Amino acid sequence: MQVAIAMFPKLTILDAIGPYQVFANMPDAEVVLCAARRGRLADGGTLHLDIDHTFADVPNPDILVVPGGNITRQMARENDPIVEWIRSVHEHTTYTTSVCTGAMLLGAAGLLQGLKATTHWVAYDELRRYGAEPTEQRVVFQDKIVTAAGVSAGIDMALQAVAKLSGSEAAQAIELLIEYDPEPPFGTGSLSKAPQNVKDRLSGLVDLWR
Amino acid sequence: MQVAIAMFPKLTILDAIGPYQVFANMPDAEVVLCAARRGRLADGGTLHLDIDHTFADVPNPDILVVPGGNITRQMARENDPIVEWIRSVHEHTTYTTSVCTGAMLLGAAGLLQGLKATTHWVAYDELRRYGAEPTEQRVVFQDKIVTAAGVSAGIDMALQAVAKLSGSEAAQAIELLIEYDPEPPFGTGSLSKAPQNVKDRLSGLVDLWR
Repeated sequence: MQVAIAMFPKLTILDAIGPYQVFANMPDAEVVLCAARRGRLADGGTLHLDIDHTFADVPNPDILVVPGGNITRQMARENDPIVEWIRSVHEHTTYTTSVCTGAMLLGAAGLLQGLKATTHWVAYDELRRYGAEPTEQRVVFQDKIVTAAGVSAGIDMALQAVAKLSGSEAAQAIELLIEYDPEPPFGTGSLSKAPQNVKDRLSGLVDLWR
Repeated sequence: MQVAIAMFPKLTILDAIGPYQVFANMPDAEVVLCAARRGRLADGGTLHLDIDHTFADVPNPDILVVPGGNITRQMARENDPIVEWIRSVHEHTTYTTSVCTGAMLLGAAGLLQGLKATTHWVAYDELRRYGAEPTEQRVVFQDKIVTAAGVSAGIDMALQAVAKLSGSEAAQAIELLIEYDPEPPFGTGSLSKAPQNVKDRLSGLVDLWR
């Protein structure tokens, strides 16, 4: 089974690496990181990947993972070439998935029209632009379209997908392998749980997506 | 504040990227990925980084993060050059941290002697070799030595460290930013919670560390 993770400059790297680490341990799976160009690719911070595969090299993945990043708002609005590739490979996938604001790119590809979907909480309104109904669930399955909430939610999404593809015991073993027995220190990890003073610290991000 | 993440071939990439994503959002922090050599560096799977900084370029980080991987058992036993660099930078750090089996490298540097520490559950016995007392806690602070359990535990560790360094409101905002409101689908993410049939699927890994 081939899992393609779509990479692009300025992505949020944990969006991609959570699912990567889970799918890399799925039985009989090959995970391929692909991008518009081979070679050096910067995330939204100080990290650089060295990419071996272009989108054209990966025309037929079984699973597609589209991570997010603040740049996806513009990429989706401007119909970046990644959008056409997503539309094309989606025809053959078993699951087409997004993490965080990667949902904008599924939306631009026309895949979310009329569906419930989730994304990073900062982008609920932007998601409506693509005909989706945003929900505050952590992972949303709608037939073969799977969307996950912000950043760390890609881990939960991938574990659920492995359970459907390889059985729950395989997914349970990966949960143990990556010691995914989380202890969030503060309990402020979702919009409905965070107090106003914490939300206020992210007002710059909120303005960016307004 | 400079955060150095020590990279090496065959590392478990989520061990590094969990803390990376958290510390990258800490106020006034600069995160530097460094390795023995610049250029292409493969993780334990199919991912490649492009590294810009050598260990020698980063002699004085405030925070050190050492990720794990199955290779750390051998690196620690054979006194890989990373060990001497860890010992050297540790003299000046505010926190010296490990994720998963990165603890073996702290151990080889002599930093865990007589301390409580944690690591991936598969490596508790190996940790005793370095004079540490393994505990099944997710994150263990012992003065400035901080060890985290397997793979995903680096996220919890980094959030706790940010709280100590920049205050709890800053850490709470990062928890919200990365939507760290986890829903592990199966509740099998630690050794004491996983049933025997799930543990049995990882017997190959257990043998590797025996």
